[in-house]
Amino acid sequence: MLEQVKTIEDLKKLSVKQLPTLCAEIRDKLIADVMQSGGHLASNLGVVELTVALHYVFDENDKIVWDVGHQSYVHKILTSRGENFSSLRQQNGISGFPDCSEDEHDSFNTGHAGTAISAALGLAKARDALGENYNVIAVVGDGSMTNGMVYEALNNVKDTNMLIVINDNNMSIGDNVGSATLNMSKLRVGKYDRNKQRLKKFLLKVPLLGKPTYKFLRWCKRRAKARFVRNNYFDNFDLKYIGIVDGNEVKDLVYYFSKIKKNVVKPTVMQIVTKKGKGYSPAEEDPESFHSVPRAGSSTDSLESAAVVGDTLCKIAEQDDRVVAITAAMARATGLASFQKRFPDRFFDVGIAEEHAVTFAAGLAKGGARPFVAIYSSFLQRSYDQILHDVAIQNLPVTFLLDRAGFVGEDGQTHQGLFDLSYLGQIPNLTILTPATYKQLSQMIEQSLTEVGPTAIRYSKYLSGRDGRFDGAVQILKSCENAKIKILAVGAKLSETAQRLAQSIDGVEAVCVLQVKPLCVDYLDGIRGETVVTLEENVLQGGFGQTVAAYLSPKKIKVVSFGVEDTYVRHATVEQQLALCGLDFDSLFDKISALLRP
Amino acid sequence: MLEQVKTIEDLKKLSVKQLPTLCAEIRDKLIADVMQSGGHLASNLGVVELTVALHYVFDENDKIVWDVGHQSYVHKILTSRGENFSSLRQQNGISGFPDCSEDEHDSFNTGHAGTAISAALGLAKARDALGENYNVIAVVGDGSMTNGMVYEALNNVKDTNMLIVINDNNMSIGDNVGSATLNMSKLRVGKYDRNKQRLKKFLLKVPLLGKPTYKFLRWCKRRAKARFVRNNYFDNFDLKYIGIVDGNEVKDLVYYFSKIKKNVVKPTVMQIVTKKGKGYSPAEEDPESFHSVPRAGSSTDSLESAAVVGDTLCKIAEQDDRVVAITAAMARATGLASFQKRFPDRFFDVGIAEEHAVTFAAGLAKGGARPFVAIYSSFLQRSYDQILHDVAIQNLPVTFLLDRAGFVGEDGQTHQGLFDLSYLGQIPNLTILTPATYKQLSQMIEQSLTEVGPTAIRYSKYLSGRDGRFDGAVQILKSCENAKIKILAVGAKLSETAQRLAQSIDGVEAVCVLQVKPLCVDYLDGIRGETVVTLEENVLQGGFGQTVAAYLSPKKIKVVSFGVEDTYVRHATVEQQLALCGLDFDSLFDKISALLRP
Repeated sequence: MLEQVKTIEDLKKLSVKQLPTLCAEIRDKLIADVMQSGGHLASNLGVVELTVALHYVFDENDKIVWDVGHQSYVHKILTSRGENFSSLRQQNGISGFPDCSEDEHDSFNTGHAGTAISAALGLAKARDALGENYNVIAVVGDGSMTNGMVYEALNNVKDTNMLIVINDNNMSIGDNVGSATLNMSKLRVGKYDRNKQRLKKFLLKVPLLGKPTYKFLRWCKRRAKARFVRNNYFDNFDLKYIGIVDGNEVKDLVYYFSKIKKNVVKPTVMQIVTKKGKGYSPAEEDPESFHSVPRAGSSTDSLESAAVVGDTLCKIAEQDDRVVAITAAMARATGLASFQKRFPDRFFDVGIAEEHAVTFAAGLAKGGARPFVAIYSSFLQRSYDQILHDVAIQNLPVTFLLDRAGFVGEDGQTHQGLFDLSYLGQIPNLTILTPATYKQLSQMIEQSLTEVGPTAIRYSKYLSGRDGRFDGAVQILKSCENAKIKILAVGAKLSETAQRLAQSIDGVEAVCVLQVKPLCVDYLDGIRGETVVTLEENVLQGGFGQTVAAYLSPKKIKVVSFGVEDTYVRHATVEQQLALCGLDFDSLFDKISALLRP
Repeated sequence: MLEQVKTIEDLKKLSVKQLPTLCAEIRDKLIADVMQSGGHLASNLGVVELTVALHYVFDENDKIVWDVGHQSYVHKILTSRGENFSSLRQQNGISGFPDCSEDEHDSFNTGHAGTAISAALGLAKARDALGENYNVIAVVGDGSMTNGMVYEALNNVKDTNMLIVINDNNMSIGDNVGSATLNMSKLRVGKYDRNKQRLKKFLLKVPLLGKPTYKFLRWCKRRAKARFVRNNYFDNFDLKYIGIVDGNEVKDLVYYFSKIKKNVVKPTVMQIVTKKGKGYSPAEEDPESFHSVPRAGSSTDSLESAAVVGDTLCKIAEQDDRVVAITAAMARATGLASFQKRFPDRFFDVGIAEEHAVTFAAGLAKGGARPFVAIYSSFLQRSYDQILHDVAIQNLPVTFLLDRAGFVGEDGQTHQGLFDLSYLGQIPNLTILTPATYKQLSQMIEQSLTEVGPTAIRYSKYLSGRDGRFDGAVQILKSCENAKIKILAVGAKLSETAQRLAQSIDGVEAVCVLQVKPLCVDYLDGIRGETVVTLEENVLQGGFGQTVAAYLSPKKIKVVSFGVEDTYVRHATVEQQLALCGLDFDSLFDKISALLRP
């Protein structure tokens, strides 16, 4: 059936009865394609019925904003992108997130959690201000309900006609946390669901009357249940509430969406319950592992930075009672799962609440603890003000562990860690360290414990396994007596490239920069007439290279910086992204050779 | 009595009966001192009884975190800083905000709204982890309840022993907004309060029995009322709730705090109602005007940037239906009050919710409107990720109006607008404009309406009234044929200084930079052997000067940048802050003259 359904127009030709079959086929396609291409599997399996029902009921010019956005695969398949879907997350292929530049059916780009209601409210207010006429729907996972932006947005929704679908799968990325979400969960069907299953089994076994009775009961439930549940949480915002609806029953969803579409007179919240990984038993059983699956056949290094972080934190926590660790809904991905297991009382998962995480850490440090905050580079952008205002003004000893710094590959422009050297570099009192090897990462974590002020350690998922040590702001990778060019490289990959360049081109020295702030002035002060080349996986503006150029400018020493020009970098492999930005070996070989020509 | 109460120890020697007199004397001192020194008056008048009661009941090593912090004057007076209080907000004087480096009784530095519960929770968790024993109290205004950080923090408080005092004065800085706060307000005494006053008046007139009856009734109220009110909002977070308590009745507060202190077994929220400006009728009647009062005798320019913003936005909104304006709880201060009055349907005050404000604006722009977001430079730090991730990736035509950019004077380190050129500069697709005159500010607002992408306009409270126009990235203030030094200055004050320098020193050209991004390459490409000097009210790291240095480095052109070194700048006048950072005329005259010496 999916063969005939390429567009929303095709979808609308089907009868409601045909939808479950379509859902099953979409589910099969998702499993087949995503296990090949890699990507977010579990969340997309959960929202097949939701997506089908939304597009079946609502109009093509209505606008759906997908919070976080990694659950938009089904939406993409239904909006003419099914055939090209195996190109998911590959260079020039389909983006893993909603992308307005890819297709007009994507209403708003998303990537970071908690933005959908704000954006949808903006669309709805623009619609009303300009006298237009369409529906606006925000689809938000329950994990995002731990985020402050969602609250700020809900607080402003009143009187605006829009629909907010809360997709409650009892998970953010890892386990869900927090009191408010706990409270939401109390509403979840829980026991009711289990009893329903037992009743269904029993009735279907009863001959003749059983099946009709079951169907009648289901009909009753569909029409009545949503009205029976109250939700104090949403009452606070004066929102109309409908729930809880089984989000994996496509007919139920069609029924309720049709009702809502006819009667959108005030802002409405509809809470649905879906099963993450639905229909694929390995993903149902371990949705966290299937949250994001790697591309088939992609080689994964044996060691990852996250593992080193976990091991090192456990080691220092063993010796120092003050050590505590904080994450924002990503204990496993940041390597803190082992710490959580070993020191549950000293581990804090605050939910997708990066702002709170950082000020909370500041409070912990002020109270005498030594907090380590592990948040991806891109997500820590949310905490820029809190680092500057709550941690750094008071010069508090908080250590930030920024995994996924630099190019992140397939997740693309919303997730790149290409800004941290800039947004952290401008914050007074902050030390910024950039390991190239696992050994250095581990040493830096240990050293940060001895600092009086805050430290940020930024690293990519994979580092170099060589035995490079951290015993100074820079490490000479290949020295050169009368060097004409000195390459200063930040991070594992570019340090490796710098070393290869120095080995391939005469008169070139290669240096790995381990401390970006304070600046490695001892090394820079030794530079006389040589040209300095800087390499970094970061935007040039405000990055390491500019700092070096400004420092050496009064001495009229020439600095040529290579990094990311003033642009966003789309999804591709990390190697492709490096090449795209001219940071691959071949491009740099040409450019540096050119610098040597008279 | 205040003469004898200089420390908390002194305070604790008083009887409860003496406290109202003490409060009255503190109030007199506040009015007298703050009307002289300038500062936040209305909010401090409101919390006299609260502060006295907290310190009277709780121990000296207990920790109070004041959200926002501008209401900490009474706390400062009671902790040995009363005598020096007339130095408030002056260079080397008392800070207008809690400052741990000033006095050990300040538990945590605050300034931006919504951080207190996160910080207090950190302190409490550190206390528990390290086996210490003290109480932690967060004092939060109801205005901060519109902020997402408060929600993120409340969501994590569960099971931690701490007290949260919600100081409900029905105001943030301007009027309060939003559904949740509206809902909180439903709990406010409202009618009850008025009836109480009528009853009191009536009873006190009744001879003999009247006064005892009134006292008995008040006694009943004090002991019973707090238990009668329920609060669904805080139920969501599983917090013990006590309220509503009259926050201007010091004896009531002492009674409840004593109860709570004995029984802090789970996190407790106590909601009090206070009157902003209490006891000073001009401030009671117009608390917004007395939110922040100027220093006595300080000259205020006749025109302010905010007025120009308001007028210009009204003008373009008149001609273009797409124009909408957004502020985060500061309609008057940002100049939007006139717009709000004239175009109420196109004006959005989202509360102290800078993150939502920006993504909401992105949604509006995506929906075809032309949003102007007016938020102070320092507060927009909160929206760094939203500008980068929600506005700039999609290249949406949102205009940011950053008032209070550069040095802000008396508010000090938490409020300086010294980072915006850096945190905005690194964001792709964003145009950054820096007017020096009111005329330019107005022209830039108009021009931004014609842009396809986002624009940020950053300016200080006062600009130059001269008729400088905006017709290029730079404006030559004083040209010089064979200049040896070219000064590029950003902003009104430094442009004026640059012009004076060029007039005073031979061989110097002075240029006012009106567009910081994209960089003024046309002008820079014309530079040959001259030395370039840059001036900016911004940290050097990531700022304008570094960008120029990096751009000119490959040509070996010497660039010397003056701005704020890698540090925070404390409270003083703007002129003093400029001098402190070596950006005053005399310092620059010496430094530039030195550059000219062979």
